[in-house]
Amino acid sequence: MNADTLFDLIRRKKSFLCIGLDTDIKKIPEHLLDLEDPVFEFNRQIIDATHSYVSAYKPNIAFYEVNGEAGWRSLKKTIDHIRKTDPSIFIIADAKRGDIGNTSRLYARTFFETLNVDALTVAPYMGRDSVLPFLEYEDKWAILLALTSNPGADDFQFFYSEKEQKYLYQKVLQTAVSWGSPDRLMFVTGATRAEKLSDIRKWVPDHFLLVPGVGAQGGSLEEVARYGMNNRCGLLVNSSRGIIYAGNDTGFAAKAAEEASKLQQQMEKSLVQKGIL
Amino acid sequence: MNADTLFDLIRRKKSFLCIGLDTDIKKIPEHLLDLEDPVFEFNRQIIDATHSYVSAYKPNIAFYEVNGEAGWRSLKKTIDHIRKTDPSIFIIADAKRGDIGNTSRLYARTFFETLNVDALTVAPYMGRDSVLPFLEYEDKWAILLALTSNPGADDFQFFYSEKEQKYLYQKVLQTAVSWGSPDRLMFVTGATRAEKLSDIRKWVPDHFLLVPGVGAQGGSLEEVARYGMNNRCGLLVNSSRGIIYAGNDTGFAAKAAEEASKLQQQMEKSLVQKGIL
Repeated sequence: MNADTLFDLIRRKKSFLCIGLDTDIKKIPEHLLDLEDPVFEFNRQIIDATHSYVSAYKPNIAFYEVNGEAGWRSLKKTIDHIRKTDPSIFIIADAKRGDIGNTSRLYARTFFETLNVDALTVAPYMGRDSVLPFLEYEDKWAILLALTSNPGADDFQFFYSEKEQKYLYQKVLQTAVSWGSPDRLMFVTGATRAEKLSDIRKWVPDHFLLVPGVGAQGGSLEEVARYGMNNRCGLLVNSSRGIIYAGNDTGFAAKAAEEASKLQQQMEKSLVQKGIL
Repeated sequence: MNADTLFDLIRRKKSFLCIGLDTDIKKIPEHLLDLEDPVFEFNRQIIDATHSYVSAYKPNIAFYEVNGEAGWRSLKKTIDHIRKTDPSIFIIADAKRGDIGNTSRLYARTFFETLNVDALTVAPYMGRDSVLPFLEYEDKWAILLALTSNPGADDFQFFYSEKEQKYLYQKVLQTAVSWGSPDRLMFVTGATRAEKLSDIRKWVPDHFLLVPGVGAQGGSLEEVARYGMNNRCGLLVNSSRGIIYAGNDTGFAAKAAEEASKLQQQMEKSLVQKGIL
């Protein structure tokens, strides 16, 4: 998928919602636990109930890896089920990988070839040669961490150079923006710091931003849209726990759909206001 | 394992060598490819031939993950084989994980409980709450990236604050050193920048350093020992490709043992010079 196709998808779905599939076997409804693959069954029902409201799903790889081999099977089945349900949907593996070149190349093979997702989140600390292998695939994306939504973001991301007059997260954005075109590179910029998005838009006007932190982490969708949207939307906003754990009994998927639908409607409004719809 | 036990291990083995098990199915000797699990068989022979020269092994998780479910099986069998061969050996999963707290907790469970390795490499970009979950396990270690051995290290790790008069990698070292004691936290500091190790020793005098980059990446063992060793050794020096791919026919394990033995002998000399042996 390139940026044009993603923009078309967002217009068609009237939504730039990404649902994070942080599926924790300790948190899913009890009645699923007797099934052969409870994690997949949970995801299947969430996907069936919510796919018309979203442009993207984002399985968080930690939640699958923790179940070992069985977890990789649940993950593959989940990806296959999304593809079968709506082949146009954008799938992000949230794995925050990044290592020296020969190792990053293998991570790229794992996620872009074996699992065949559309995008992978990548950590920037090791620099250029740790990121470039993820940008060599046509129609695949690296989503580079810039400004994250967690409290620890303050520790290093706001480290400031007086000479360069910039913070580390700004340095990451302004350096990496030249590594990959808006067809292959996007950035993670947390919703809990929405007011920073207008600065970020100056530094990376054309690249998509993946914005986590709406919902459980406290970010505001309205502010994200106001500060972060560009003329081609340029946003994927993620919500995980706020949607998938909205209910915790047999009606969990309907509850999730309700929450996803609310966010989709707010997003549709923002897209209309911006003249995109 | 705590720092005392690790120091004892190094004295007993007369070695602070860590062998990186970056086992690439595309690079292992052809005669292994017909076996049921060539990656494990390669590792098994490498471990059998080299274990008396090392204090640690470091499987690089990318090389296993790329083979999907089968890769996780090879990895588990490799870890089990190390434990069976010499239960005192320190096992590092080189995975460079790091995410918001609830996700890092799951990565910690995967590596410290399911796989039961001793240590995990961790990326610092997301700050404190992304690292602390790895420091909550008694006898387990987080190994935080500070100064890496790859060319891309220059992009962000040398980002400089005039006011704080420090580089980002220094900020990471000086901030994180208070997060975990020398029994649970060590740092990655690349051998390709060995001259920096004397500064690093001032900032983190007591913590162990994991030093990659000797061998294929060009770092010098002698310089690493000169600048980085403290009174309790404080070093694990990793070599991957230089050892495991020293040979590429049926004699590959003997060739690997030869290379490992050479490094062990140099290390023994350094330990004697320092008065540790």
